[in-house]
Amino acid sequence: MPATGVQLDEVVAVAGFRAALRGFLRTSETKARRNGLTPQRYHLLLMIKGASDRSETLSVTDLADKLQIAQSTATELVTRAEEAGLVRRIASPRDGRVALVQLTGEGEQRFARVFEELSTERDQLRSAIEALG
Amino acid sequence: MPATGVQLDEVVAVAGFRAALRGFLRTSETKARRNGLTPQRYHLLLMIKGASDRSETLSVTDLADKLQIAQSTATELVTRAEEAGLVRRIASPRDGRVALVQLTGEGEQRFARVFEELSTERDQLRSAIEALG
Repeated sequence: MPATGVQLDEVVAVAGFRAALRGFLRTSETKARRNGLTPQRYHLLLMIKGASDRSETLSVTDLADKLQIAQSTATELVTRAEEAGLVRRIASPRDGRVALVQLTGEGEQRFARVFEELSTERDQLRSAIEALG
Repeated sequence: MPATGVQLDEVVAVAGFRAALRGFLRTSETKARRNGLTPQRYHLLLMIKGASDRSETLSVTDLADKLQIAQSTATELVTRAEEAGLVRRIASPRDGRVALVQLTGEGEQRFARVFEELSTERDQLRSAIEALG
């Protein structure tokens, strides 16, 4: 076997982390779907809710950036979430041409349910991460 | 806005972690592809290499389990990686009916290249994780 510069103990830790991550993403998806949310829609709600802390309201462009998807994909995602009653668009108070995206009460509740249901899995992932050293 | 049991500071931290994770997985994919590996094939090599530490050689069933994919998908993945010269199958010394999967020299080198190229991104992900508190 040829010598490589890779530290085997690091590979072991990273492999363990990747396995834990795969399990986490899989359970996230299952729990989101059980609450009627696609994984992408759950992430959309998470990003909007996560920004609301700093009383920040995100535009579709901000969301495209945070979700690392194309602007057109983000527009479509927001439109469909709006049709599903999860988010609403409001005109930016600073620039009426810019639409900001907010959670509706239904979006808020649906998000909170999935987020709470994932609490155990987040703890497990945290343990796997701590094992990374 | 209805009251929910969700801790907003936790949502902010989780949203930040998810954004960092998305970036990490995206860069992983780019770097794997640049070295001629699909993301799935890179994970396959990572799991095989990660197990070799304990002088453990994995069967296709073990790999299906670790990668959380169906046995038939794992068989197909291993077969195609074998055709690409990245892995080889050997008969288990304990049970000749069971095939174990090893990295070839080429698989070893290709894996090491991607793994090393991802070192900075792993550090960034670690920082994002530490910010989770």
